[in-house]
Amino acid sequence: MKIAVVAALSALWVSKLIAADPLPAWNESAAKASIVAFVEKVTHEGSPDFVPAAERVATFDNDGTLWAEQPIYFQAFFAFDRIKALAPQHPEWKDQEPYAAVLRGDTKAVLAGGEKGLLELIMATHAGVTTEEFEGIVKEWISTARHPVTKRPYTSMVYQPMLELLAYLRAHGFKTCIVSGGGIEFMRPWAESVYGIPPEQIIGSSIKTRFELRDGKPVLVRLPEINFIDDKDGKPVGIQQHIGRRPIAAFGNSDGDLQMLQWTAAGAGARFCLYVHHTDAEREWAYDRESHVGRLDRGLVEAQKNAWTVVNMKADWNRIYP
Amino acid sequence: MKIAVVAALSALWVSKLIAADPLPAWNESAAKASIVAFVEKVTHEGSPDFVPAAERVATFDNDGTLWAEQPIYFQAFFAFDRIKALAPQHPEWKDQEPYAAVLRGDTKAVLAGGEKGLLELIMATHAGVTTEEFEGIVKEWISTARHPVTKRPYTSMVYQPMLELLAYLRAHGFKTCIVSGGGIEFMRPWAESVYGIPPEQIIGSSIKTRFELRDGKPVLVRLPEINFIDDKDGKPVGIQQHIGRRPIAAFGNSDGDLQMLQWTAAGAGARFCLYVHHTDAEREWAYDRESHVGRLDRGLVEAQKNAWTVVNMKADWNRIYP
Repeated sequence: MKIAVVAALSALWVSKLIAADPLPAWNESAAKASIVAFVEKVTHEGSPDFVPAAERVATFDNDGTLWAEQPIYFQAFFAFDRIKALAPQHPEWKDQEPYAAVLRGDTKAVLAGGEKGLLELIMATHAGVTTEEFEGIVKEWISTARHPVTKRPYTSMVYQPMLELLAYLRAHGFKTCIVSGGGIEFMRPWAESVYGIPPEQIIGSSIKTRFELRDGKPVLVRLPEINFIDDKDGKPVGIQQHIGRRPIAAFGNSDGDLQMLQWTAAGAGARFCLYVHHTDAEREWAYDRESHVGRLDRGLVEAQKNAWTVVNMKADWNRIYP
Repeated sequence: MKIAVVAALSALWVSKLIAADPLPAWNESAAKASIVAFVEKVTHEGSPDFVPAAERVATFDNDGTLWAEQPIYFQAFFAFDRIKALAPQHPEWKDQEPYAAVLRGDTKAVLAGGEKGLLELIMATHAGVTTEEFEGIVKEWISTARHPVTKRPYTSMVYQPMLELLAYLRAHGFKTCIVSGGGIEFMRPWAESVYGIPPEQIIGSSIKTRFELRDGKPVLVRLPEINFIDDKDGKPVGIQQHIGRRPIAAFGNSDGDLQMLQWTAAGAGARFCLYVHHTDAEREWAYDRESHVGRLDRGLVEAQKNAWTVVNMKADWNRIYP
């Protein structure tokens, strides 16, 4: 009888513990404990580290932090697919680099063309349409395209532990924002349904737009001209421009996020900085210092020096994708 | 007895009506009725015009729409006061226009210098400090400076009917945003306490900033270089950049707001556009087509053509300031 009661109570206690865990895809680890400890201390009224809800801003990089980014940024695949879709209207592309390399499916040759070639591809595929047209193009692509390696839809290559983290922070009054080097208008059409992050909380790189009246109907036309690069030094600049307050927590995975983490860490009061370290070659990809995308080198040094949380994907996450 | 009951019930009914009026500074008028009708139809579930809360974005111009703007934009007074405060460090300004005119208190001569002169004053007073330093400077000024004509603090020259309107919209699930030609970092330090609008919902003109590490501490330095002019054609561009969705309601007072209203009106579904028309020379200022600030000319024509609401300040508002 006594044993039965203890067993029943234990089962209840365990099931309550499991039910209460808001981060089930996270193994019990120092990384998980650091997240929970931070959230508790800034949200517990009376805590010396308490932060009012309006100031609980958490910023997340996207590529490599919320979804995968290998073998190249997913937005590059979008650009390549657009080149193929637009090729019939541009017969000259067959003999013209970097377009010809894209049409041949020769990604290596495209990348060998360097930044100038990639920028040309971005402009050819992201400009020349209205903002509404571009939104439709992105929505269509994201709902049909498949990743060349995993053959999964790109939106199913988001990280389950990070989805849980986003929900956990929001449940504790945080405003979750994306601060990505990726295109702001490339992320907005799907980020709300995938991450629960509305368009006004998304910051990214952008091209310029121009207001026009077309037959009396106002449109915003996307121009082949860089407006803002939301990477490295640009991330704190973008945060100040869009949010106007300093985040109290920041999450990234590469040296491109370092300045965002430094900016966040330097504020007064409790702060939290976290790097996702890609260490799982089997379930995802393993890379850091030598990677051509998502290079994490200086960031690892700074993380250690400043006692920031570093997530070891292989050890700390029991699931990668939903 | 019967009469007493009717009188009592009437009194009760009237007092309930008064208690329930969320817009007491608005006289019963077509303008007020149009606001209430719009809010009811987009927030009433089951209405054919229902709009989900997440999409209830309302954008407000600031100068002349939420607070006064005569005899010149208040931010210009801020710049003039900064010139005076900085003058001891710049003895050369005594003999150098447009600085000398500011130091002489000769506003006419300053304005005669045109846009180039004003831009020089803005750069001399808004750049060269960090974002944190600038925030402190604005906070100090706004809490001490007085308007040269009314002798009131500038923040008490906000429009009571518009404060009520902001609160009324928020109570109905709207996100209220400022979209102003004024400086984004000039508005943010005080807009939250005065209007209840947080920094991330403020869009304005801006200068560029640069991320720097100073003795290891990250700062954003304000540079004497225009980043974005949030006026006229720039307003829809700024809205798309910051919010990423089209407003369903927009409020302005000048031709500088026309494109924002056009952009708002052109969306699908129910839309609301309103112009504040400055018609009250006694309690405020009366101006429109010929004014050097807040000129309202094309806007009046478009408002009539499109049946937008035009507020006659003198007739429609029983109070101007709180």
